[in-house]
Amino acid sequence: MTQQADFNVLTETCPSRTSLSRIANKWTAMVVIVLGAGRMRFGDLRAAVQGISPKVLTGTLRDLERDGLVARYAYAEIPPRVEYELTALGHTLHTPLHALGRWAEENIPEVLAAREAYDTLR
Amino acid sequence: MTQQADFNVLTETCPSRTSLSRIANKWTAMVVIVLGAGRMRFGDLRAAVQGISPKVLTGTLRDLERDGLVARYAYAEIPPRVEYELTALGHTLHTPLHALGRWAEENIPEVLAAREAYDTLR
Repeated sequence: MTQQADFNVLTETCPSRTSLSRIANKWTAMVVIVLGAGRMRFGDLRAAVQGISPKVLTGTLRDLERDGLVARYAYAEIPPRVEYELTALGHTLHTPLHALGRWAEENIPEVLAAREAYDTLR
Repeated sequence: MTQQADFNVLTETCPSRTSLSRIANKWTAMVVIVLGAGRMRFGDLRAAVQGISPKVLTGTLRDLERDGLVARYAYAEIPPRVEYELTALGHTLHTPLHALGRWAEENIPEVLAAREAYDTLR
């Protein structure tokens, strides 16, 4: 985005765009926001991110793990216990994603008013 | 996300989640990042956000306009001229989305290394 950067998300073939595609996603955002509070079990994560399906949560966590943003801990217990935690890199992503979530919460009244005005005029 | 907030994106039925769904999107992020530089014509926007299709750009701009984030200016010229610009509200969204794009650009080397390690082990 800047001329100083080695990588540029606006360039179609730049690898940084593959990362932006992953992180600019509502489920990724919510999972990372929740994991900001600390290590968590799958079931607790699923309960915290209301409405996420087990399949989507599994895929989101796997993508985050592959990108080095989440660490997965599996314990050979009965029943098996699996926990997830942000890595150091994941914590650096928490900041902008948390800011995005906060933006949505703080500005939704203005957004809703804009939608109503738009729909009324058209 | 906080107990102080009136709205919470983690709640499935909270209207703020409809905003998060829109803004936590790679195309939205890139369009808002580019419009941070100022008012722009459709064709110039399309050239700046490499790889975006006219259909996706049109839909992204319409959604941004409906949410009060982008203003559309149509001039009755020949050929017709249409320009887009961030609103004051849109400028407040530029900050977290720009941070997200920067994160992708700055951390892609570490993300790529993590992917390679993950794929090698599995």
